[in-house]
Amino acid sequence: MTKAELGSLLSKKIKGIKTSPIRDILKLTENKDVISLNGGYPAPESFPVKTIEELTQIVVNGDPNVFQYQKTEGYQPLLDILPSFLSRKNRQVISTPENIAITAGSQQALDMIGRMLIDPGDKIAVESPTYLGALQAFNPNHPQYIEIAADNDGVIPASLEQAFIDHPEIKFFYTIPTFQNPTGKTIPLQRRKEIADILKKYGKLAIEDDPYSETRFEGEDLPSLQSIAPDNVIHLFTFSKTFAPGFRIGGLVAPKEYIEAFNKLKQGMVLFTGGFDQALVAEYIRGGYLDKHIQEILDIYRPRRDAMAQAITEYFPNIFEFTVAQGGLFIWVSLKKEFQRLTGLLNMKELLDKAIKAGVSFVPGSPFFANSKGDEIAMRLNFSNQSEENIVDGVRMIGELLNTELSRLQTLGVFNY
Amino acid sequence: MTKAELGSLLSKKIKGIKTSPIRDILKLTENKDVISLNGGYPAPESFPVKTIEELTQIVVNGDPNVFQYQKTEGYQPLLDILPSFLSRKNRQVISTPENIAITAGSQQALDMIGRMLIDPGDKIAVESPTYLGALQAFNPNHPQYIEIAADNDGVIPASLEQAFIDHPEIKFFYTIPTFQNPTGKTIPLQRRKEIADILKKYGKLAIEDDPYSETRFEGEDLPSLQSIAPDNVIHLFTFSKTFAPGFRIGGLVAPKEYIEAFNKLKQGMVLFTGGFDQALVAEYIRGGYLDKHIQEILDIYRPRRDAMAQAITEYFPNIFEFTVAQGGLFIWVSLKKEFQRLTGLLNMKELLDKAIKAGVSFVPGSPFFANSKGDEIAMRLNFSNQSEENIVDGVRMIGELLNTELSRLQTLGVFNY
Repeated sequence: MTKAELGSLLSKKIKGIKTSPIRDILKLTENKDVISLNGGYPAPESFPVKTIEELTQIVVNGDPNVFQYQKTEGYQPLLDILPSFLSRKNRQVISTPENIAITAGSQQALDMIGRMLIDPGDKIAVESPTYLGALQAFNPNHPQYIEIAADNDGVIPASLEQAFIDHPEIKFFYTIPTFQNPTGKTIPLQRRKEIADILKKYGKLAIEDDPYSETRFEGEDLPSLQSIAPDNVIHLFTFSKTFAPGFRIGGLVAPKEYIEAFNKLKQGMVLFTGGFDQALVAEYIRGGYLDKHIQEILDIYRPRRDAMAQAITEYFPNIFEFTVAQGGLFIWVSLKKEFQRLTGLLNMKELLDKAIKAGVSFVPGSPFFANSKGDEIAMRLNFSNQSEENIVDGVRMIGELLNTELSRLQTLGVFNY
Repeated sequence: MTKAELGSLLSKKIKGIKTSPIRDILKLTENKDVISLNGGYPAPESFPVKTIEELTQIVVNGDPNVFQYQKTEGYQPLLDILPSFLSRKNRQVISTPENIAITAGSQQALDMIGRMLIDPGDKIAVESPTYLGALQAFNPNHPQYIEIAADNDGVIPASLEQAFIDHPEIKFFYTIPTFQNPTGKTIPLQRRKEIADILKKYGKLAIEDDPYSETRFEGEDLPSLQSIAPDNVIHLFTFSKTFAPGFRIGGLVAPKEYIEAFNKLKQGMVLFTGGFDQALVAEYIRGGYLDKHIQEILDIYRPRRDAMAQAITEYFPNIFEFTVAQGGLFIWVSLKKEFQRLTGLLNMKELLDKAIKAGVSFVPGSPFFANSKGDEIAMRLNFSNQSEENIVDGVRMIGELLNTELSRLQTLGVFNY
């Protein structure tokens, strides 16, 4: 009598897929007294609990159809109100209810995009570094990644164009133009226009992931890529950062033919998205709760970002550089060009192990590079989920560990500065 | 300036996937005055709205962690209480929180199983007929289906064993042993034991889908296949029928190694399942609301099933046969053996078009056959979602259309009875 052994049953596409380092770190630090600068978590004290209570009352006593099976396309009142949300100044996305597909957060949209568009070996252009959750969504389809060079203004249009010339078979370009994950960088207007022109010129598709543009602390709102090249862009949105992640509602805007294909795929995946959560989000937008809540979280996150930027300047050895993001949830710390010779000497995974023991966690940089060799000296620090005091403490602890490491390398004579 | 054309971008796995006929019929009849005997919808008047209101109050004022990002594995209080739900007499599933993965209804579990286990061309054994949503979940992985013959007691063990002998590469056997969809048939205890023995003998895996076993109107509860062969069975459950479909909570029980693989896959798909809905279901079970609600829906569904069975007997031509399901949501009507010569003469899709015009809808039988040629003369009728009066009216209308069709065929001289 034998057992059904998983090893002999696994499909090829699943073999070799890895778990998320962010989620692994979360597990490692679970129930431990560790200052987490790890995940992209909203501040728990910011959750609009009173609002949620009001909204559940409204929805429970409203249309009982929210409890029933839904159309795969989405709950109509949510589809009807989304174009107004998407046309806010921070997105300026052009949409109608027919151009929208509802998903369980952006992650499900990324999964659907990967399945719909990627065959094994297909080429995908990505920012370098890029959101590791997107890589995780695409990886089971076994694409080949073309990394596009970036500077302080995000991806460099000439590099993107060169990639389309060198690899005309590229299926799409995945980008987070606003407060990018992990770098926090934003592509300025002029460069967005250039990218849009390149997409049109080469008949290429861009996946524009935008989970953060509502969380702008300063600077001018920018139009989405989608608003400049609607026929060449699939635009992703989510309410995880502006409502609460516990309701898995996000979606995408795309040309109609794509929406039909997405919904066909979605049928087999989940049949439909939960009506109750969709109705809550519809009421959240309709009742003006969203606008109020965005102001509240900005007031919480802005001083946290400031505290983090100041603490990095103060406590990190000056071999590092970082950009002060104008919004979003992250600061990305990377090695200055002139210290690249440290590569191979400073191991960020080992540093993380020490940091967790010291009482702080962060995400090492390597997993954000699509074709990483694992030796990148960089880290992503989240500022939304900890008090200013904790942020300063956490950054100080990491800074001390870095200084200790550098001293050790100097003592060994392998590094001088 | 060119558009990014979807046609040239679609992945091979997506090409050729079809939409669900059930969902197509729903769209066709949307906002029309049609008695739907189509989808497997719970009765909307049965939704426990008062209970949901109480539960949302409890959850909103409870652990604020439900609003935050969750572990991929699931919300711990739900994982902790599920083994008690799964061990109820109608399942008798053996589980611990570590053996359970949470999904957005059973459909997401089926999708995950397909992706995890099926490579293109892999062989999958299925009941004949089987749940078309499972076929839809598996199809993007392009399996080859081996249909296993069934009689009034469901799948025939000798046929299953022969399939394992003829096709030793079969990856798994997909089955709905209790109140099968679409046939309503239930595999008796002795046969379950025989199937379990065959699974063990050949080291094979079964996917046991069980959305219905709580909705038993009469007869003895039966232990799940999983309880007899836990190392060889993945058991699927859902709260769509016993709570409300609007909360997308279901899951699966499997050996631990499978659970780890599922969660790895799930990370890239959706990161995690919404905490709020998980918490609602946990409270729903913990507070004893579930047991009460099951009684309520049984009292609604039983007379509806009876009304449907009686109406079919009364109004359908006696070329058909059907089983009175002891539970679940469906009655399956199929051609008696001695009238097989009608195949090719009676088109169920054309009948459906006429039925919708007359004011009633049903699901034609063909899509439930994995390797269907499209000419099967059968239909699935749902009794949960309409009043007894509507059920009788709807069945009468279909019966009249069938009689008209048979008269026409007799007049044409192509059929005699």
